[in-house]
Amino acid sequence: MTEVEAIAHKLARQQKEISVAEFFERNKHILGFGNPTRSLLTSVKEGVDNVLDACEESGILPEIYVEIKNHEDGECRLIIEDNGPGIIKKQVPHIFGRLLYGSRFHAIRQSRGQQGIGISAVVLYSQLTTGKHAKITSKIQEDRPATVTELAIDTNRNRAEVISRAIVHWEKPSGTRLEVSIVADYKRGKRFVYDYLQSTSIVNPHAQITFKEPDGTEHLFERTSETIPKKPIEIKPHPQGIELGTLIKIAKGTKSRRLSSFLKSEFSSMGDRTTKAVCEKAQLDRGLDPKKMSREQFLTLHKAFKKVKIMAPSTDCLSPIGEILIKRSLKHQTQEISPEFIYTASRPTSVFSGSPFQIEVGIVYGGSLPKDKSVRLLRFANRVPLLYQQGDCVSTAAISSIDWRRYGFDQSSGKGIPSGPAIFFTHMSSTLIPFTSESKEAIADIPEIESEIKLAFRECARKVQSHIHKEVKRVKTREKFDLITKILPEIAKKSSDMLGKPVPSLDAVITKIMDVIWIEDLIECEKTSSKPVQATLFEDSSENIDGGWITKSTILVVNYKNMPQKFNLYALIPEDAVVGTVTPKPAKITSRYIKWNLDAIDPANKVDISFELAGLDKGDFDENDLYIENINASYVIGADKWEGE
Amino acid sequence: MTEVEAIAHKLARQQKEISVAEFFERNKHILGFGNPTRSLLTSVKEGVDNVLDACEESGILPEIYVEIKNHEDGECRLIIEDNGPGIIKKQVPHIFGRLLYGSRFHAIRQSRGQQGIGISAVVLYSQLTTGKHAKITSKIQEDRPATVTELAIDTNRNRAEVISRAIVHWEKPSGTRLEVSIVADYKRGKRFVYDYLQSTSIVNPHAQITFKEPDGTEHLFERTSETIPKKPIEIKPHPQGIELGTLIKIAKGTKSRRLSSFLKSEFSSMGDRTTKAVCEKAQLDRGLDPKKMSREQFLTLHKAFKKVKIMAPSTDCLSPIGEILIKRSLKHQTQEISPEFIYTASRPTSVFSGSPFQIEVGIVYGGSLPKDKSVRLLRFANRVPLLYQQGDCVSTAAISSIDWRRYGFDQSSGKGIPSGPAIFFTHMSSTLIPFTSESKEAIADIPEIESEIKLAFRECARKVQSHIHKEVKRVKTREKFDLITKILPEIAKKSSDMLGKPVPSLDAVITKIMDVIWIEDLIECEKTSSKPVQATLFEDSSENIDGGWITKSTILVVNYKNMPQKFNLYALIPEDAVVGTVTPKPAKITSRYIKWNLDAIDPANKVDISFELAGLDKGDFDENDLYIENINASYVIGADKWEGE
Repeated sequence: MTEVEAIAHKLARQQKEISVAEFFERNKHILGFGNPTRSLLTSVKEGVDNVLDACEESGILPEIYVEIKNHEDGECRLIIEDNGPGIIKKQVPHIFGRLLYGSRFHAIRQSRGQQGIGISAVVLYSQLTTGKHAKITSKIQEDRPATVTELAIDTNRNRAEVISRAIVHWEKPSGTRLEVSIVADYKRGKRFVYDYLQSTSIVNPHAQITFKEPDGTEHLFERTSETIPKKPIEIKPHPQGIELGTLIKIAKGTKSRRLSSFLKSEFSSMGDRTTKAVCEKAQLDRGLDPKKMSREQFLTLHKAFKKVKIMAPSTDCLSPIGEILIKRSLKHQTQEISPEFIYTASRPTSVFSGSPFQIEVGIVYGGSLPKDKSVRLLRFANRVPLLYQQGDCVSTAAISSIDWRRYGFDQSSGKGIPSGPAIFFTHMSSTLIPFTSESKEAIADIPEIESEIKLAFRECARKVQSHIHKEVKRVKTREKFDLITKILPEIAKKSSDMLGKPVPSLDAVITKIMDVIWIEDLIECEKTSSKPVQATLFEDSSENIDGGWITKSTILVVNYKNMPQKFNLYALIPEDAVVGTVTPKPAKITSRYIKWNLDAIDPANKVDISFELAGLDKGDFDENDLYIENINASYVIGADKWEGE
Repeated sequence: MTEVEAIAHKLARQQKEISVAEFFERNKHILGFGNPTRSLLTSVKEGVDNVLDACEESGILPEIYVEIKNHEDGECRLIIEDNGPGIIKKQVPHIFGRLLYGSRFHAIRQSRGQQGIGISAVVLYSQLTTGKHAKITSKIQEDRPATVTELAIDTNRNRAEVISRAIVHWEKPSGTRLEVSIVADYKRGKRFVYDYLQSTSIVNPHAQITFKEPDGTEHLFERTSETIPKKPIEIKPHPQGIELGTLIKIAKGTKSRRLSSFLKSEFSSMGDRTTKAVCEKAQLDRGLDPKKMSREQFLTLHKAFKKVKIMAPSTDCLSPIGEILIKRSLKHQTQEISPEFIYTASRPTSVFSGSPFQIEVGIVYGGSLPKDKSVRLLRFANRVPLLYQQGDCVSTAAISSIDWRRYGFDQSSGKGIPSGPAIFFTHMSSTLIPFTSESKEAIADIPEIESEIKLAFRECARKVQSHIHKEVKRVKTREKFDLITKILPEIAKKSSDMLGKPVPSLDAVITKIMDVIWIEDLIECEKTSSKPVQATLFEDSSENIDGGWITKSTILVVNYKNMPQKFNLYALIPEDAVVGTVTPKPAKITSRYIKWNLDAIDPANKVDISFELAGLDKGDFDENDLYIENINASYVIGADKWEGE
């Protein structure tokens, strides 16, 4: 054997398989366990996210209990308990003691956790830092006892080692309780845990979360909605953006014997017509056996996917937060700031690498927010707040690439995070969130996602700009108005006094000077215990509203022009609202707006309009969005031109 | 079965193992394959890093050939060929077609790759995006043929699928050639590939790298050193900072039957005395059987590790770049800038979580670098340049937390990346680089590492500050000097002319006004083909210098004080330099400095001093570091007080 050959053989002998548990044990920072402060948050987060997923899948309203007991030497005991469906005895060691094992990886559906790493990583971290076993109590049936399992992880094999198992009585009908000891910096970390639980509670209003601190203090994040979010449906991959290799892999595993049935059965959005169009574009026979197709045939098929217009994926698999909830969330987080306004924008579903996703954004503006500092970013992914690695996140990149100077923000050289009195909110929902690392704190810089975030923020920024613009216009007219309605009568009165003549009517003069239609509105909220009167015209609503808040919007329209004016008025209403009493009788009510055909209003005359909304929380609806039709929009202060639905 | 119980069973049926290949296939962005630009760089990087590691372990001077053939539709063919030891036939499928399989994970030793993921991830990415197989040619013995293997990865099982194997003739004595097709953006990515190869060549001067572009252009990064870096030695874990869980795991696997032999055989830096001290501090019997110790006993042992002073780990396992090479690297990268000066600083070896590491930093200052922009950061880890995710790297955090205003930089509020005409260089060498993610672009924010980087930069910044300070002092004295030596004689001459008297000698006056020892120096470089004359006093040097550059330093010392002055002068010399002719005869030469005992210099007299250095490249030594002893330092311009070795 020559010297070089000996080296090759020597190197070969050193080659060895690495278990995934060993890998993550060594690289725990990748999973968010880089330092004791962050490890505390990561542990709580993995536990709570898991509970929320399990409850959502099982249709249970989650009740989550998080307790931290602070021991000496920087070691904490963490307890996370839920009222979920419980875990059958046999599965406990796999779920808590084995990495890359789970139920959500192979399903294309929105969920918080996906990889089957999170909760077992907490157990691994616990074992690594304290050498203690994890204790899991679980109960799956009301009339049976619970099982308590103590386990460790054999990292060489990536398998759980069950240390003990026992049967205990537990009052809960069903649920799971995890207890682990971890090295953590409670003092520094508690603020993050609190922030995370608060943010989580806001975007998961159906969850009730109790947080008990080591000193006994209890924080209750109450449930504000009894509705379990619609369970995201599992879907097939979308052909758009799918990798060629994935296409070939799916074809290898399909039961279909014809290309056409393969396309229809293994992918979403592939109906008869689209399938036909794709096959024609690819010049492939629809009767081809997908298992016998060559790489080149798959390549032409793959290219055809990009050339044929394929319907966007169904949104059933996604569970966006919704504009109302986002507004509520932002309002909650900014109570002390009393912002001037909050705008949101939602994008339609889009696709990257075959995975559908949707972007929702929001901008909170004004109030006591500092004018000379960078705007604050709030980031969420599949309803989970992202607290670290902001600089590395696609949302930061997207926001930084917009020229915010055009929307009235400060931004040196038109790039980077702008400065101004604002908070920017971003939420991505997807069947697959492409996190930059397994610590799941930043979304990778994928062009399709960046583009959607930019479009959403541009839309939102235009609203901000238009608000500021409308406000400026209204203030100016108001000044004119004040001048006319207060000073002119004074002058008239004084002149009349001096001349000893009666005070003349100034209506005509005021009208002539103002020369506008003036629209003003007011929104009030009141608590009610009775159901609002349903507007008979609006038949869509079947939702059951038990008391809650009634939002009443009053609109005053005054004609300060010198001719009678006749036009249509639209008031937008939020998605989840139920419309109550509307006066005068509207011409039309849809789920999006109320429309009135206003009869000719004579000069100097006014019309009072009002409507009630139920099904909203106090403050969910705090600004009317008014539009006018069949009149020159430049005559009108307080409403914009109706551009159609 | 109740409803809830049914749910638990249903959820259990959905639980499934996830193969690590499937996991990374889905999460390819974690490995640096997030977009086509970056994927190109990642593929090249994984290939080249692997070659460098294999050659270093085998004592071979690496010759690396990288070729990119650009095909249409954004698909590239990437070829990476080396002259390494080759891979035996049986191992090829495991190394290229299986994730988490390798030789470097279980060894505590500095290497570029560690996890056994990189190169198989390139094959996985290739298969995913192009559906093509990888082709590996390998030869391990000169007089035998090479093997060509075509393979795919079965991601469900994380195993290679060998498509074909053949025997071919290959001229190389030994080596490996990988060919893969990948979807990549060559146009945008080539700059990164070029930068990466250039930087790699600079910090690996023993490697020869050829890069062939699709249009046929070849770039040759030539070998500038024939010395293979000393092979880092495999060591035992260091007790300091080791996790409790790891300690217990090692104890479970040990062959030692006594605590004392366990500590000595399984850990580094544990001699008899330290072992005894640790056991005493922990109040544990040295005869205890480590396999029978309780968790509580391990806990006290673990605490004792922190209380007893344990020697830093041996640096044999690390291979830092060295100050000379860093300076050369920085000089190379900043040629066009012609910086004013470059300073470096190295920290001693330190430890995090049981892994030794060392930090080296450098600051390039001045020249045509912009004064009003943020300083540029250059980051390296185990001799690999880090090109992405700067914002997320511990070096960025460390630099941002220093108040640079104290060192003459601009920095708003004393935090963040400072502005100024400078480039900051950071290199971490370690047996384990804690990357934030598997794309290996940013180092995690670990307190011990951050602290070392801060200390290194503070030291470097002080040098910068002292340079600027010395420069200011020298400029001021120079002004005085110019005044005295030029204007005084003019005045004397004019006065004498007017009075018709002879011009008086001004030496005494000048001396009286100057009242300093003035030290000036000059460094010149010249190419030589002969060996420099070895200074007989310096016996340490046995290095063989074949021609190369000779650096000559000339120092002029003038006594402008009015009394004779006698003192010692020290000139520091760089690590790898060989000292040639020195005049006058020095009192001492060590590997760090040359010392002269200067005889009394009379007022207005001067002494010429010079020394030659070989073994350096042109420009490696471009500024004298001079110190004086046995004289009041405030009398001297151009040298600082000698503080001892």
